Amino acid sequence: MDEKKALELSREVAKRVLKAVNSLPLERRGEFFAFGKSSVTKLVDKVAEDAALEVLRKEKLRILSEECGYVGEGDVFVALDPLDGTFNAVRGIPIYSVSLCFSDSEKFGDAFFSYVFNLCSRDEYYAGEMAFKNEKEIKVGGKENLEEINAVVYYPDRPLPFKRIRALGSAALETCFVAEGIFDCFIDLRGMLRIFDVAGGICILERAGGVAVDERGNSLKNKRFEISERINVVASNKILCKKLLELIV
Amino acid sequence: MDEKKALELSREVAKRVLKAVNSLPLERRGEFFAFGKSSVTKLVDKVAEDAALEVLRKEKLRILSEECGYVGEGDVFVALDPLDGTFNAVRGIPIYSVSLCFSDSEKFGDAFFSYVFNLCSRDEYYAGEMAFKNEKEIKVGGKENLEEINAVVYYPDRPLPFKRIRALGSAALETCFVAEGIFDCFIDLRGMLRIFDVAGGICILERAGGVAVDERGNSLKNKRFEISERINVVASNKILCKKLLELIV
Repeated sequence: MDEKKALELSREVAKRVLKAVNSLPLERRGEFFAFGKSSVTKLVDKVAEDAALEVLRKEKLRILSEECGYVGEGDVFVALDPLDGTFNAVRGIPIYSVSLCFSDSEKFGDAFFSYVFNLCSRDEYYAGEMAFKNEKEIKVGGKENLEEINAVVYYPDRPLPFKRIRALGSAALETCFVAEGIFDCFIDLRGMLRIFDVAGGICILERAGGVAVDERGNSLKNKRFEISERINVVASNKILCKKLLELIV
Repeated sequence: MDEKKALELSREVAKRVLKAVNSLPLERRGEFFAFGKSSVTKLVDKVAEDAALEVLRKEKLRILSEECGYVGEGDVFVALDPLDGTFNAVRGIPIYSVSLCFSDSEKFGDAFFSYVFNLCSRDEYYAGEMAFKNEKEIKVGGKENLEEINAVVYYPDRPLPFKRIRALGSAALETCFVAEGIFDCFIDLRGMLRIFDVAGGICILERAGGVAVDERGNSLKNKRFEISERINVVASNKILCKKLLELIV
């Protein structure tokens, strides 16, 4: 599979997920849906995943997704978050997205294409060699001074020197916001994120010139597409990243 | 002036501000605009305020707004935030609003009508005796357990026990989110807010059964419509508010 085919597939996924989510009235999105023996999810997560898998399962892909775990067989691995920002989607807060990351192995470091689609504004982010928003190349911002930065932080546990702090509720989109330079960093040290939450957005951020590491400064490239591991993320431009690591340790 | 007339006026303001903001391309919204001898604002703030004042200045109103200070003469006072969430509006993040609060005196406690309009989703919140979202009555949520709440906090300076913490960048909308029960509290203790930022949203929240106080637990009803005072806000349902005050002091 090449970038072109991955983009085509991703767009079809986005189209189907958008339709599925928008077909579900706001008041029904948060209903619980039981599946398997002991699993429960929100109805909106279920319809989003079903819509995404309907497209992806036609291809030879090994797909990792939140509700279903690994499904499918193939040489190309996909980390899928069918709906990143469920809390917002259920409440009508217009910040939620679908995220995909295609890799030649189960290692995040072998990713060759990533895609994030804002299901409200319909902005499209993707990255192969380079990163794009709505077909226009994007780059991370260049701010290096902690006092000047606009930061996304989950959650501050001490006073921080940043100019602004936000937490908008969709890691996939927020990492894309850093990739396009409208925020300067994304920090989540709660030990809550899983690879499919952030693989798409982080890959785009890296191709836009940024860097993403864990709380010890280790690259996330060695992370595997697997469902149980929880990861911490500090992502920004390279110089700022070093300063952020010094600040938070 | 009665509630009906205030609602009519507010809707006309919202319509004009929406048109003015949407007429300004995203890449021009953040341009600086100089006015008076030493004042500078963002172009998008200026066009929003001009559009709002064009409507309000036709009436006998004493209007307090961010860029212009007090303008107009009349027995009814209006605290106006033509664009709450400028940071988001400039970056295309779909969370910004226009906010109005009508009062029989310059005291916030004499407010008789408030209005907040989401300039992206076009959701409309208002309150006279009761609070409404899109013509449907709204009430604050009933959660009392700190571990279960979804909180808006500017900015956490210590670990907090809440289930979720967000900061979305529009106090007017976020207080309305508390009013409709999709968030459980709004906390901003930075000493940054001014009365026109929050008068509209807080009034709606109170009419929806909630309460808003400063960091010492004092009601905000004695606050005046004036431009220089900075205020702190803790807003939620009544039982939760007491617990929040104990937590943050």
